[in-house]
Amino acid sequence: MSMPVSVRWVGDATGHLEILDQTHLPARLDWLACHDVETTVEAIKSLRVRGAPAIGITGAYGLVVAAGEAVRAGFSPDKARAHVLARGEELASARPTAVNLRWAVERSLAKLASVAFSPSAAELAALLLAEAQAIHDEDRRLCAVIGRHGAAILPVGNVLTHCNTGALATGGIGTALGVITTAWDSGRRFEVFADETRPLFQGARLTAWELVERGIPVTVVCDAAAGHLLATGRIAACIVGADRITANGDTANKIGTYSLAVLAAAHGVPFFVAAPSSTFDLGLATGVEIPIEERGAAEVLAPLGVPAAPTGAKAFNPAFDVTPARLIRAIITEHGAIEPVTPERIAAVLAGRG
Amino acid sequence: MSMPVSVRWVGDATGHLEILDQTHLPARLDWLACHDVETTVEAIKSLRVRGAPAIGITGAYGLVVAAGEAVRAGFSPDKARAHVLARGEELASARPTAVNLRWAVERSLAKLASVAFSPSAAELAALLLAEAQAIHDEDRRLCAVIGRHGAAILPVGNVLTHCNTGALATGGIGTALGVITTAWDSGRRFEVFADETRPLFQGARLTAWELVERGIPVTVVCDAAAGHLLATGRIAACIVGADRITANGDTANKIGTYSLAVLAAAHGVPFFVAAPSSTFDLGLATGVEIPIEERGAAEVLAPLGVPAAPTGAKAFNPAFDVTPARLIRAIITEHGAIEPVTPERIAAVLAGRG
Repeated sequence: MSMPVSVRWVGDATGHLEILDQTHLPARLDWLACHDVETTVEAIKSLRVRGAPAIGITGAYGLVVAAGEAVRAGFSPDKARAHVLARGEELASARPTAVNLRWAVERSLAKLASVAFSPSAAELAALLLAEAQAIHDEDRRLCAVIGRHGAAILPVGNVLTHCNTGALATGGIGTALGVITTAWDSGRRFEVFADETRPLFQGARLTAWELVERGIPVTVVCDAAAGHLLATGRIAACIVGADRITANGDTANKIGTYSLAVLAAAHGVPFFVAAPSSTFDLGLATGVEIPIEERGAAEVLAPLGVPAAPTGAKAFNPAFDVTPARLIRAIITEHGAIEPVTPERIAAVLAGRG
Repeated sequence: MSMPVSVRWVGDATGHLEILDQTHLPARLDWLACHDVETTVEAIKSLRVRGAPAIGITGAYGLVVAAGEAVRAGFSPDKARAHVLARGEELASARPTAVNLRWAVERSLAKLASVAFSPSAAELAALLLAEAQAIHDEDRRLCAVIGRHGAAILPVGNVLTHCNTGALATGGIGTALGVITTAWDSGRRFEVFADETRPLFQGARLTAWELVERGIPVTVVCDAAAGHLLATGRIAACIVGADRITANGDTANKIGTYSLAVLAAAHGVPFFVAAPSSTFDLGLATGVEIPIEERGAAEVLAPLGVPAAPTGAKAFNPAFDVTPARLIRAIITEHGAIEPVTPERIAAVLAGRG
């Protein structure tokens, strides 16, 4: 029984970032050493690290990697800062849908802006490492709090989740999966069903692996079996994470989330979203404004690298979809559960007036 | 541009059955020679041949294979008939959900029962081959008629289909896919979207292959992306086949069909079923009476044979689900479209009083 770690910093501020390569899971636990930003950005784009909170943390550590590049290149303070800012934009734009990535990078860069003196490259690295570790530690604490808030309102019975929202997706126990494991750890017993989550099988590869590692029984289902599973009456609640939530509660999350939310509503099964407040993008009024990343056809046409479709077939491969607020029973944040999901409740809870 | 064939008989009544091994498609076109019933039953169970009409045809030819076994064994007329009946039960029960398999086997056996004399094993083989070829030819004609009826009511615009319901699934151009290709061949132009259809990827492997072979553009989507695709407004109609339809119109079909029907209804997109009248099981009042085949965990946990989930994870793998009649705009049969889908309309159309 152990909890995996998605990313870790090795050494002092001139050290390097290590990413648990999730594309190799569950077959192999390979740590990818990131000594440069190029490797870090590639790891984010290739989903070696994924999950909105985890890529936010990776982005923050990526800035330290950028400062390390400046140290090794012998850059002046001005040049080092310019280098970090440029690399920061590369990191922040590595994936477009999750808001946490840009949020974390901008939070770290804002820390730099608040510094009165003109730091050397080495001082930049130290400042950025401190902030990245703060973001990482904070996410760990947020996950624990979200887990407790969520477990308190999760209905009794079996749960169905989509994609991976556990330790691999965050800096702590996870968001939606953290709610599930917190409920389990409190002594409650239920069945956990995991959508396999095509095209990249994060449910089968990652969620099932985390649960097996923790000794929690898990049953994997094909995504399209969710309707039948819900119709059997065996599911008491669906719970998922989020990559971006707009001011009205519309939620972008892994492709298939919207299908699941519609199916849950058709069966009267409550549908929950669990996410830290950094997932909210209050500058966007509704979900239609969220950019949806489209990924390559090979993820669909060659599952796990094995060609399945004939030459000549095209694919449509949106990485995310948007679930409208009306389909969400509650959004569970570190400030508590937002229920009902309305712009007013969102604003109040996020302002600590919930 | 060519139309594939799912099964074919080679030689005279003492010849053998050949099955295009669909588990190897689209990578390889391998013909499996069936000289004995064991091989034939294995091919049905392993989905080397699949699709309700095609396995019905295979079951009918399988009886000829059984008679051939009796010929080679030198069985007496009585022993030959007993052998064919016993093998017939093995064939009819090879898969439990599709009704066409048992229907076709029982139709052929009823032909034997109607024979006044006591046929030798060789005469049995000849009688059974004639009936199997009649069933095969009839399905070819039914597909063409269903295609025309369906094309006449298929809305203008793009279509989304699930699983494979084309030439590979039938003895002719197909059911739902036959409707699509008939509409295309009439000069209409639209986009065809194919659900990949986990766990066995019949959409990506078979439907996309048939369409590419015919020169019709096809876009494959992950099953769980259907909600997002429907929400974009790009789909005018969904159309699927059926494995069994009860007296009230409830329809068992490939797992994921029910999810798609719920999603279509949520977006106001009409949902059509296309199937020959032999798919109806009027002895069952509603879909809750349909036996749902559950298949092994490996289909889910090791997609295309590649392990994706950790050791210790379980799987829930129903091969079919049931779509209630209320979600189906029309059922397209060789007797015309049944619309609305009510027990009364079903009875009237199937009785030729439509």
